[in-house]
Amino acid sequence: MSGKSQEKRTEARLPKGMRDIEADEIRAVQRMLGTIREVYESYGFEPLDTPAFEYTDCLGKFLPDQDRPNEGVFSFQDEDEQWLSLRYDLTAPLARYVAQNFDRLPKPFRRYQTGPVWRNEKPGPGRFRQFMQFDADTVGTESVAADAELCMLAADTLEALGIPRGAYAIKVNNRKLLDGVMEAVGLRGEENYIRRLGVLRAIDKLDKFGLAGVSQLLQAGRRDESGDFTKGAGLTENQANAILDILSATRQGGTATLNEINKYVQNTGIGEQGFAELDQINGLVGASGYDDRIFITPAVVRGLEYYTGPVFEAELVFNGEDEEGAPSRFGSVGGGGRYDGLVARFKGVKVPATGFSIGVSRLYTALQALGHFKTDAVQGPVVVLVMDRDRVGDYNNMARTLRQARVDPNDPNSPYIRAEMYLGTSGMKAQMKYADRRGSPCVVIQGSDEKARGEVTIKDLIEGERLSGEIGDNAAWREGRPAQFAVKEGELVEAVRSVIARHRE
Amino acid sequence: MSGKSQEKRTEARLPKGMRDIEADEIRAVQRMLGTIREVYESYGFEPLDTPAFEYTDCLGKFLPDQDRPNEGVFSFQDEDEQWLSLRYDLTAPLARYVAQNFDRLPKPFRRYQTGPVWRNEKPGPGRFRQFMQFDADTVGTESVAADAELCMLAADTLEALGIPRGAYAIKVNNRKLLDGVMEAVGLRGEENYIRRLGVLRAIDKLDKFGLAGVSQLLQAGRRDESGDFTKGAGLTENQANAILDILSATRQGGTATLNEINKYVQNTGIGEQGFAELDQINGLVGASGYDDRIFITPAVVRGLEYYTGPVFEAELVFNGEDEEGAPSRFGSVGGGGRYDGLVARFKGVKVPATGFSIGVSRLYTALQALGHFKTDAVQGPVVVLVMDRDRVGDYNNMARTLRQARVDPNDPNSPYIRAEMYLGTSGMKAQMKYADRRGSPCVVIQGSDEKARGEVTIKDLIEGERLSGEIGDNAAWREGRPAQFAVKEGELVEAVRSVIARHRE
Repeated sequence: MSGKSQEKRTEARLPKGMRDIEADEIRAVQRMLGTIREVYESYGFEPLDTPAFEYTDCLGKFLPDQDRPNEGVFSFQDEDEQWLSLRYDLTAPLARYVAQNFDRLPKPFRRYQTGPVWRNEKPGPGRFRQFMQFDADTVGTESVAADAELCMLAADTLEALGIPRGAYAIKVNNRKLLDGVMEAVGLRGEENYIRRLGVLRAIDKLDKFGLAGVSQLLQAGRRDESGDFTKGAGLTENQANAILDILSATRQGGTATLNEINKYVQNTGIGEQGFAELDQINGLVGASGYDDRIFITPAVVRGLEYYTGPVFEAELVFNGEDEEGAPSRFGSVGGGGRYDGLVARFKGVKVPATGFSIGVSRLYTALQALGHFKTDAVQGPVVVLVMDRDRVGDYNNMARTLRQARVDPNDPNSPYIRAEMYLGTSGMKAQMKYADRRGSPCVVIQGSDEKARGEVTIKDLIEGERLSGEIGDNAAWREGRPAQFAVKEGELVEAVRSVIARHRE
Repeated sequence: MSGKSQEKRTEARLPKGMRDIEADEIRAVQRMLGTIREVYESYGFEPLDTPAFEYTDCLGKFLPDQDRPNEGVFSFQDEDEQWLSLRYDLTAPLARYVAQNFDRLPKPFRRYQTGPVWRNEKPGPGRFRQFMQFDADTVGTESVAADAELCMLAADTLEALGIPRGAYAIKVNNRKLLDGVMEAVGLRGEENYIRRLGVLRAIDKLDKFGLAGVSQLLQAGRRDESGDFTKGAGLTENQANAILDILSATRQGGTATLNEINKYVQNTGIGEQGFAELDQINGLVGASGYDDRIFITPAVVRGLEYYTGPVFEAELVFNGEDEEGAPSRFGSVGGGGRYDGLVARFKGVKVPATGFSIGVSRLYTALQALGHFKTDAVQGPVVVLVMDRDRVGDYNNMARTLRQARVDPNDPNSPYIRAEMYLGTSGMKAQMKYADRRGSPCVVIQGSDEKARGEVTIKDLIEGERLSGEIGDNAAWREGRPAQFAVKEGELVEAVRSVIARHRE
């Protein structure tokens, strides 16, 4: 439709904190998702998809550091003026789904879901406003066997992705321990709600600021190197120390750690209950031989406010180098916990639930940067050159013949040969350059000479590239035409297969 | 985190026009996407992912019937007050990506992309505000061989999805034919822009209202059965007839249709150019033997304003019955065309491009409703019952042993056995009911008697269900314990495999 003239040019740019994802990463992430899916399916979880946005009131506000409405999420109004928000995780939509479909779901309800989530936060290096999660949740049981199972699922998933045992840790704790200690030091009741929230957020900074920093954040506050001051939770030194004690209770082995924890929660009611649950999880983990992968770790609390019991964190513990050779350590690549209150927001009755979420984008980045994850890049397509514009029908047919053949004729799961006719309008030299840039293993050439002989020429680009480094003499090069051979038209597929095979090991 | 009390219940509800997608559909769509991806890859297209939203000015406004700003899309403001919109298709983001990365991309640039798109439109039956597309585009060539290739890609894709030849049609036309006829009847120039847009939208209603209805919409307007009047494009009867003539030019076979078309566009300049392009496409299609799948069809125009040359539509042409047995006919499941102006919005220079888009959600619905697409539902998980709460460690280990074994031990591509320990807190009867609802092939039972003998009992639920219909006598049923057998603990995996195999053919 011609008509409107375009006078003003628009600047092509990505929204802040967003990114495009290109072929190699897409293929690697697809494989990752397939592997995760296989493990989750084997545990009996069923897939579910919910829409990208929900009514804002259905999502609730459970993001860390979000005391102001509409912070942290992208929101907009529908034409009937109801507020909608892009989902910031996959748990809140699950709670809405379960509440809406409660009666017809089998209980416990086990579902997995993967997809992008969006956070309206300040972007930074490696920190985007759209990223992908992969969640498994069990809804409708208070048994901590469900929590223990999710920890084992997490371990199995990381190993299926190629991360060796010892290079990751699944850390487990129970929010109730902390609740017990807080009760014991007098932080009980509605009037201390904000202070308890402050404790949670202070502890969540342990990796960043260490015990000394957390101690400051638990008390008056902390001044950072730039001079900025962060107000603390306002606890007394004694109160803060009671909390730091239990954070530091990690010992060698689950049972030793549990014994240490036990000292701090005796006679704290909720704390003892948390201890009993953690003890039970430790028993299940041990019985299945996962105690070399899953560790009781009192310092794990998780930033989200909605957790009510066991919490877990999946961490990569190996040290590596980043792309520039600098030492690099990756922390959390996933986590989760028990959230017995989320569905209750809708139902009015408590529906116990627990879940584990992998940060797919983050895990991919970690594995890439640490060189721990081989990207077997897919070969570019075979390019059929256009030597004679009047014969595009023939060239197109050659490409078609190739892509109807599998790379390995004896393997029905083998991919088809990737092949295309050159679709641009440039000459021979540009066509060769195009094939190079596409990473083609070879090009197919049929000029009038070849046509007359009923032949096609196959030029092996990878072998050609290698030889061009070895043969210095330009004339000798042209004479010899290395890495190039002619076959009968009917032998095209076999000849191309042999070149592809040559460069696949 | 206890503390805040939840007094007011939130109603669990989906936003208008949105839906949840459950296990069977997700698995079927995953398979569809895998098949489409395989075909697109074989044609040499490379995957790309762009974010869910873009700056509104980068997307532009190319939706049909969208003359008012912000209609048709979901938009919101970033904190810096720039407007963002959820993508309404995958073409506009591609144009932005190409413009932004132009110099480093191989030309022609061939990419595919799949993902959800969002339209802020009135939802209706089968018409949602989030749906999935799967696009292939070739950017940077004006050769209509690229358009012909996309038509063949469309045909190959539908056949790979199991739609037999003859049950679909890829229809091709060229916008320039219509432009030629409009010029010939005096609708040239800026001053006739709105009128030409009206012609386009009138023709787009051909399937709905027929030639007579389109004729009214081309002239003064059309009154529907309810009495509502839609204002027409304001053409004279002669002008309208010239357009109706070319719409009706379809004859048996591409060449016959082209001959008919030729009558109407001679000496129309742009129309003759369109004819030459269509003639070339017809030649390529014929040379590859696709003329029984791809048809020149002058009535295809596509609703989007941005097309500038060849346009295509993929239609399912078979008639079937819907779920209630009523006759049902599905139309378009995909389409596309050439859009030489989209990238120019950013670059200032013309970057020719063409693309084809499959409406994945729509195609899935069509195939489902027509019973044309077998959903081989995945079997539910084997459920290990909890007979003795103190032995959950053992039961958990049985589930673990099962899910570490492949269904077919001789096939490394076979899925793992799906297995779970029952995680609820209910008794034996509820556990059996749970396994039934999950579609489990069998449950695994080990009470104290079996434990003492070192055995496990396998209960085949599918066989059990069948037999319960045959055996009327309740006592005889309990006596015989049909479809239930005991094996040694070490034979668990083999025994479960045999039950799964029994129900897989």
